[in-house]
Amino acid sequence: METKRSTVPAAEEILGRYYPVLDHGFVALVDYMGSDDAVEQAARVSYGAGTRKVSQTRGLVRYLRRHRHTTPSEMVELKFHCAMPMFVARQWIRHRTASVNELSARYSLMPLLFYMPAKEQFALQSRSNKQGREGDASPAVYRDAVERWEALRQAAGDAYAWMLEEDVAREIARIDLPVSTYTQWYWKIDLHNLLHFLSLRVDPRAQWEIQEFARAIAGMVKRVAPLSYEAWVDYDLESRPLTRVERDVLSRLVESSDHGVSARSGAEVSTEEMRGAGLSPREIRELVEKLQAPDRPDFELDLSRMRSAEDVAAEMYEAVPSDFD
Amino acid sequence: METKRSTVPAAEEILGRYYPVLDHGFVALVDYMGSDDAVEQAARVSYGAGTRKVSQTRGLVRYLRRHRHTTPSEMVELKFHCAMPMFVARQWIRHRTASVNELSARYSLMPLLFYMPAKEQFALQSRSNKQGREGDASPAVYRDAVERWEALRQAAGDAYAWMLEEDVAREIARIDLPVSTYTQWYWKIDLHNLLHFLSLRVDPRAQWEIQEFARAIAGMVKRVAPLSYEAWVDYDLESRPLTRVERDVLSRLVESSDHGVSARSGAEVSTEEMRGAGLSPREIRELVEKLQAPDRPDFELDLSRMRSAEDVAAEMYEAVPSDFD
Amino acid sequence: METKRSTVPAAEEILGRYYPVLDHGFVALVDYMGSDDAVEQAARVSYGAGTRKVSQTRGLVRYLRRHRHTTPSEMVELKFHCAMPMFVARQWIRHRTASVNELSARYSLMPLLFYMPAKEQFALQSRSNKQGREGDASPAVYRDAVERWEALRQAAGDAYAWMLEEDVAREIARIDLPVSTYTQWYWKIDLHNLLHFLSLRVDPRAQWEIQEFARAIAGMVKRVAPLSYEAWVDYDLESRPLTRVERDVLSRLVESSDHGVSARSGAEVSTEEMRGAGLSPREIRELVEKLQAPDRPDFELDLSRMRSAEDVAAEMYEAVPSDFD
Amino acid sequence: METKRSTVPAAEEILGRYYPVLDHGFVALVDYMGSDDAVEQAARVSYGAGTRKVSQTRGLVRYLRRHRHTTPSEMVELKFHCAMPMFVARQWIRHRTASVNELSARYSLMPLLFYMPAKEQFALQSRSNKQGREGDASPAVYRDAVERWEALRQAAGDAYAWMLEEDVAREIARIDLPVSTYTQWYWKIDLHNLLHFLSLRVDPRAQWEIQEFARAIAGMVKRVAPLSYEAWVDYDLESRPLTRVERDVLSRLVESSDHGVSARSGAEVSTEEMRGAGLSPREIRELVEKLQAPDRPDFELDLSRMRSAEDVAAEMYEAVPSDFD
Repeated sequence: METKRSTVPAAEEILGRYYPVLDHGFVALVDYMGSDDAVEQAARVSYGAGTRKVSQTRGLVRYLRRHRHTTPSEMVELKFHCAMPMFVARQWIRHRTASVNELSARYSLMPLLFYMPAKEQFALQSRSNKQGREGDASPAVYRDAVERWEALRQAAGDAYAWMLEEDVAREIARIDLPVSTYTQWYWKIDLHNLLHFLSLRVDPRAQWEIQEFARAIAGMVKRVAPLSYEAWVDYDLESRPLTRVERDVLSRLVESSDHGVSARSGAEVSTEEMRGAGLSPREIRELVEKLQAPDRPDFELDLSRMRSAEDVAAEMYEAVPSDFD
Repeated sequence: METKRSTVPAAEEILGRYYPVLDHGFVALVDYMGSDDAVEQAARVSYGAGTRKVSQTRGLVRYLRRHRHTTPSEMVELKFHCAMPMFVARQWIRHRTASVNELSARYSLMPLLFYMPAKEQFALQSRSNKQGREGDASPAVYRDAVERWEALRQAAGDAYAWMLEEDVAREIARIDLPVSTYTQWYWKIDLHNLLHFLSLRVDPRAQWEIQEFARAIAGMVKRVAPLSYEAWVDYDLESRPLTRVERDVLSRLVESSDHGVSARSGAEVSTEEMRGAGLSPREIRELVEKLQAPDRPDFELDLSRMRSAEDVAAEMYEAVPSDFD
Repeated sequence: METKRSTVPAAEEILGRYYPVLDHGFVALVDYMGSDDAVEQAARVSYGAGTRKVSQTRGLVRYLRRHRHTTPSEMVELKFHCAMPMFVARQWIRHRTASVNELSARYSLMPLLFYMPAKEQFALQSRSNKQGREGDASPAVYRDAVERWEALRQAAGDAYAWMLEEDVAREIARIDLPVSTYTQWYWKIDLHNLLHFLSLRVDPRAQWEIQEFARAIAGMVKRVAPLSYEAWVDYDLESRPLTRVERDVLSRLVESSDHGVSARSGAEVSTEEMRGAGLSPREIRELVEKLQAPDRPDFELDLSRMRSAEDVAAEMYEAVPSDFD
Repeated sequence: METKRSTVPAAEEILGRYYPVLDHGFVALVDYMGSDDAVEQAARVSYGAGTRKVSQTRGLVRYLRRHRHTTPSEMVELKFHCAMPMFVARQWIRHRTASVNELSARYSLMPLLFYMPAKEQFALQSRSNKQGREGDASPAVYRDAVERWEALRQAAGDAYAWMLEEDVAREIARIDLPVSTYTQWYWKIDLHNLLHFLSLRVDPRAQWEIQEFARAIAGMVKRVAPLSYEAWVDYDLESRPLTRVERDVLSRLVESSDHGVSARSGAEVSTEEMRGAGLSPREIRELVEKLQAPDRPDFELDLSRMRSAEDVAAEMYEAVPSDFD
């Protein structure tokens, strides 16, 4: 269709197509409003579409992000259709600045699709992080776990289908579906809040399953607003806060001159000195990590994996217990 | 302890005590800030605590609520500790204007407590409402459902405990717990947004289980801010919107004079005329319902049911799979 | 440009064109995302664009609005460029659910444009409403007021220009500009929150000047999402809440049968009875007002008044004190 | 009064007392809910008040802030009564996560109090920052500015008083009051959002006048939640983000070992190399600034400046044009 609205070819290319995530989930970009030029337009409160060069827009977008002038990024909006296990949905919904319409299990019949972790994701409780995972579980334990999951899901699905058959209220019939059951929603959010969501959810400390969704969405943001995406990687995602005491420590090691920055020859700060300055053992480990050269992650989508809406819809419908709708 | 803050004896009486809801849930008021006088103070932007009469405060509070001047009600804050089945938590969390800290199943061990609907709550799918329940299911079906639920929960709890024993990451071990599993959170919200929550959640169209929580909370609001509570019952909860066409219909039936309001003798508007004016069959049924004399619901708490924090904590801890923490 | 996004011809027709409001203000729709079909799509959590009939979409949109299912309306987004006097901006900004980028008087030079009320808007303090206006001021007083305003603005503008000439910081130079000075911003909001804004701001109790802006925006909403707009007029704007006691009063005057609704012959409720039931004198006046047949307001835009972005930009730039930028 | 709520003596000491800011403004803490222990209680979703040691609470509060686990900080709430010039109010209100009730100039008579910058604040437009000030204006220009301001305010105040005398609607009479006129409001916000506000508003790039308010509020936060305050100074206020490229630069200058961190001997990164790595000239200046040893600012309140509510109220009432209320 014809429109006078700002249009982004790289976004149009994926619009309405479904990107698979995990075994039965997906993310689809279903609508967008604005791009990097909308950020500039709002920051300048300018008239009309503007005729600025990309390099000027890039400079402004980077300046705004570096200095936490985040309101212009709120002027870009993205809307997604997503399917995810309920335990992922429960983490995701904690981001309150989005609009959400979820499939209602009171009203609709739920597709009986459940998330089954792959062997690589079946890991032990982390010792260091206390809420993550690390180290592989044994293959035998994994095999047993899969067996138990399959039996549980079979029983839960049977109970659900049986209650529907008995005409029990759907809001009651669903109460023993496991949190691995897939749900789905429409999710709309502005670019500023989306990038904040992504910073938290592509983070290795987030549960791996929600990271997978965040990575797919990051790849879509890269297409809708590439300059904002690049600034986010440079100034948020791969940025690390240098705390007051850490700045103090670093100022003893590094100096600056007109020609650049340089190491103060022979300078060092011992672990004891860092403890004395107020850093806990954990903070010292964190500082060491911050001083590593950073990665430059990429979130490019593999377009060959894209599916059509019809295809995905058919899979969902088939998974609904039949003959009750 | 001594404080210069505004203090409400009826709220202090229940502070930190746990009110049971459903079979293993609870709501406890754990903190509050302000009462009806804080609403007045903010509306008047006044200095100091003020020495206004209760009748003046009542008049202002009622005027503000009637005219949707809701910002002064944001000046009162309440904080609750609550435990509810996950399917209730998922409905509750949709209210985005609250602050929430939920027990993390990635970090903590989950108590194996599950919601079991009583016979009276085990109903058939509603025909009229499409997302509710109506009519009793047969006792035999209920008996079968209870059996299935018990088996499912036993199996899900066993699998969870076994994975913990095998040191599987908690965030993985929990993925097949059913949505009937109890979770808990701290929940803080201002009075304005809380009353909006209550309007939606004590409503008969909300799922019965969340209604139970909303009724308990309404009883607590009645103690923290009784004038606001009364105004909410009169102007929100038991108020009904009279739509444009409904006003048109009513104006043909009723007239006003200096002495009061009266029925226009012989006036009637037929179903056909209402259809012609634009009301759908469903809207006509809704109008008839609105014209009934309203109830005056009460949400008085039964204080004899209150439990201590220690008692409730002990029950929760006992339900956690043992020997793994 | 070509897009796969949902496009609305009536919205495209006004996109980027500037609608004058007051003497120097404007509202321009600069972008939009979605229309009534996006409300339906989210409510159904459906795949793809759908092929539902307009009458089905209309029925759903009306049902959702009537029953306060407001989240699907959040799925439509509108963005405006607006210029308004600062005292209007200060009322407007109280709606916190929008994104705003305002012209910064710390960074930019302010156009010296001031709002001058027309004779018809120059009214006396209202006795009944306490914050509105009613009754005309005398022509002589208006004449004097205009003279004083002109002198004040001349002096304030001169002081501003002089300080800029002396290179005083802009953030200081502007502190004595009057609140009648025009400012401008980009303003983005979803349809649900926009309709709430409009309900409050086209209301006769809002200050007349902000009503003018709200009416222009209502005319734009009518073009972007006509079914939602119509449902808003019927179920929000021209709806009135019937309070608990008012329902009680009405139930004594009106009864319903299978054939429709009718007046109870001879029924009346006297002012004394209404007082006894708990209605204040003010509430009795409010009830009488609610029982009048409602208006059906229209917010059609007069497209012949539209101006181009270039034209409006030129007027603004000319009003900036010269030679300092 | 007696309360079972958590009470903070250092906060009680200032409760309801008015701290002067600028020439006629103030900030008063009028209520609070919770303290550092409420942050811990929510993070742990714990039962009852807990008996943890301060050092444990401090460790948790610092961990949470360092890792951006901000939701537990939302569990503490503070309420202030503030008076500030309108141009400050317009910056302040941009923080949308607070509850606000402002004195209405449609309903109330405005005190004729205006902000007059002191000589030290009367500065030139900044060259580097584009929206700040730097360098002193000449005494003569300041003298002239004061004269112009006094004349303008006299004329604006006279016009306002005259219109009130002529019974012109207050909402009209006030439209030529300058943005230096003081307004006031009740402002309630949770600790998380308050600390974010403070980070932005005690920043040297904020307008100096709003910094003054932020500094007074920071001193109050220090009394309500001292551990959160300390963590905020260390991890937010005096923290600086180290961007992706900056981390890369630093990793060439510094290395870590089991004994601590040390300068890589002879290592340097020239300005040209930094440009080549993607840093703009402005970013290079920013990096140099970040590498300075940080300050440790203090926001201790001078309690001897505190005024009583009665005293402040009397000053405000005297400034209202008389005989019209």
